[in-house]
Amino acid sequence: MKFIRKRTTIRKYQLKEIPSELLHKLLETSLRASNTGNMQAYSVIITKDTDMKSRLAPAHFHQPMLTSAPVLLTFCADFRRFSKWCEARNACPGYANFQSFMNATIDAILVAQTFCILAEKNGLGICYLGTTTYNPQMIIDILCLPKLVFPVTTVSVGYPDESPAQSDRLPLEAIVHEEYYHDYTLVDIDRYYAYKESLLENKRFIEENKKETLAQIFTDIRYTQKDNEAISRNLLKVLRQQGFLF
Amino acid sequence: MKFIRKRTTIRKYQLKEIPSELLHKLLETSLRASNTGNMQAYSVIITKDTDMKSRLAPAHFHQPMLTSAPVLLTFCADFRRFSKWCEARNACPGYANFQSFMNATIDAILVAQTFCILAEKNGLGICYLGTTTYNPQMIIDILCLPKLVFPVTTVSVGYPDESPAQSDRLPLEAIVHEEYYHDYTLVDIDRYYAYKESLLENKRFIEENKKETLAQIFTDIRYTQKDNEAISRNLLKVLRQQGFLF
Repeated sequence: MKFIRKRTTIRKYQLKEIPSELLHKLLETSLRASNTGNMQAYSVIITKDTDMKSRLAPAHFHQPMLTSAPVLLTFCADFRRFSKWCEARNACPGYANFQSFMNATIDAILVAQTFCILAEKNGLGICYLGTTTYNPQMIIDILCLPKLVFPVTTVSVGYPDESPAQSDRLPLEAIVHEEYYHDYTLVDIDRYYAYKESLLENKRFIEENKKETLAQIFTDIRYTQKDNEAISRNLLKVLRQQGFLF
Repeated sequence: MKFIRKRTTIRKYQLKEIPSELLHKLLETSLRASNTGNMQAYSVIITKDTDMKSRLAPAHFHQPMLTSAPVLLTFCADFRRFSKWCEARNACPGYANFQSFMNATIDAILVAQTFCILAEKNGLGICYLGTTTYNPQMIIDILCLPKLVFPVTTVSVGYPDESPAQSDRLPLEAIVHEEYYHDYTLVDIDRYYAYKESLLENKRFIEENKKETLAQIFTDIRYTQKDNEAISRNLLKVLRQQGFLF
């Protein structure tokens, strides 16, 4: 339990390669994660090739992990393999829909997180790239993902070349609700966000960006309504093109 | 790594309670999982009350774990708390959209799986209830989930009262693609599914259900197109009602 309590996301990696047997063993073990009906509706694309990393970089806004990590893993919702099996077995697959996408997404993330925990236990460092859903069509084109395959997250992985400080977390009582959802009062909000707002780095962040509050950094710069809505429209469009919305 | 390689889903639990301190420690540690922009857009509803379990049971098709597990955890995508914080800090939240739902869903699942691995490491057994997305409105009503909160998965947890055999998994080469997606040939499909199709329990399953192939059990009985499409329509409707689709 201790290594999870102490973990941090790693964005800088040593040049050292990850031995193939280790990578395969970690991936194979992570397939033991729970999944819907044992359909295993996911695929993992391994990127090691320098040229492929450079091609993927723009889709992820050129974050440095893209080219500096020895390995990128793109975890995909995948109902294509299962549907092909059905068709080869005189069965009519019915997985070109949103419910199947949700199941496949959840299952892909269960494998991704199991992999990440195993990787960290084995001395590797990881970073999730949330940018995967920003430009899915670019990733689909580069990785040649056919219909019923959709990239849901990307993980960069390698031997750590930094030991960053841990980021803050809200207190458990801010996240957990006993029996039913207890809606948040302004007093709750003040209390739960007090520590985050007290951090010097966050105060500096507000100043540097000439904002009044930390929340404005999120709403005006990092995760704006305009961007979120544009990404949402595109995401739904590409989901439809990949066959997961009818 | 070994306990993950040997793990199985547990559906039968001892009457023994989970000590509150243990449950809270496991949940608190699981918040160390990666998340999008450290927004922690998730909540966890803990169900221990017998009456609440009985009320949730129909939403999960009365699976026995619902009432026999000492604890149910409903992991929710939650942009309400974060949005309330923004509003309280003179910032205009823009998270009532599908992209934010996807981020929040992924982050909720990262916490769920981290919790499950920690729980198993501490002698507990877990089962994911994929039924959470089948009747989300019932769960929303029972757990009093407000707008921008959506139940994405439920985990039953308790001390194991069974030691089931491990279920099969496809070989790693069926799941992993080097550099780009290598589409499946019929020969691949035959090879990858051979072990699953050779299992006696699966052969018996085909016979009992008077089907020709194992795939037909999935397409005609367990995960039918008709059901998936009805669930998809409902899921999108409830997502819109909860404020995540515009």
